[in-house]
Amino acid sequence: MASRRSGPLTHPDQQDIDLSRVMAALSDPVRLGIVSALDGIDRGVPCCSLELPVGKSTASHHFRVLREAGVLLQSDEGTRRMNQVRRADLDARFPGLLDLALAHGREAPVQVR
Amino acid sequence: MASRRSGPLTHPDQQDIDLSRVMAALSDPVRLGIVSALDGIDRGVPCCSLELPVGKSTASHHFRVLREAGVLLQSDEGTRRMNQVRRADLDARFPGLLDLALAHGREAPVQVR
Repeated sequence: MASRRSGPLTHPDQQDIDLSRVMAALSDPVRLGIVSALDGIDRGVPCCSLELPVGKSTASHHFRVLREAGVLLQSDEGTRRMNQVRRADLDARFPGLLDLALAHGREAPVQVR
Repeated sequence: MASRRSGPLTHPDQQDIDLSRVMAALSDPVRLGIVSALDGIDRGVPCCSLELPVGKSTASHHFRVLREAGVLLQSDEGTRRMNQVRRADLDARFPGLLDLALAHGREAPVQVR
């Protein structure tokens, strides 16, 4: 999938992570489900390893929203796009937010295969 | 304005306030500006007392989103619709969220006249 994309994967620096964008990103149940599934995994997980309740193009949209908001770090390894939660950056910038969202938010079921 | 509306003003009970809806509500700069302007005012403030950077119908939409998410308490007094932040309910349900949003979120300028 990654090989079909063009352009670099852009990420906001820690100090540029914007709370409004993070809250908008985490307010979607599928996106929060993705974050919940990836949180605590200390390595990149390929998109294709996540069982999502949406189609491919919607999934790509959700991953992009999460990356552009500063919630996910994405990198391409060969043809696979890897994903990791920017837990340290988010905790440093907005202490408690991610834990609050994961504890109380509405999550769609997402499994790591 | 209130007299033109039909139907009762519905509010979620404290235990039914949904984090995803609250985050979505607070992720909009105008809505966060409204909350920021009203927070700390211990009485209802009429919609018409707020100077908003949007038109009337957009403003009505924002107030409704905030009420339905559980962020604002609205009540009609004569022809005026009064608004108050549900600070105690929000703090009880999601401790720290409102303070985090007001401290770090992007707010449009909103003044109470």
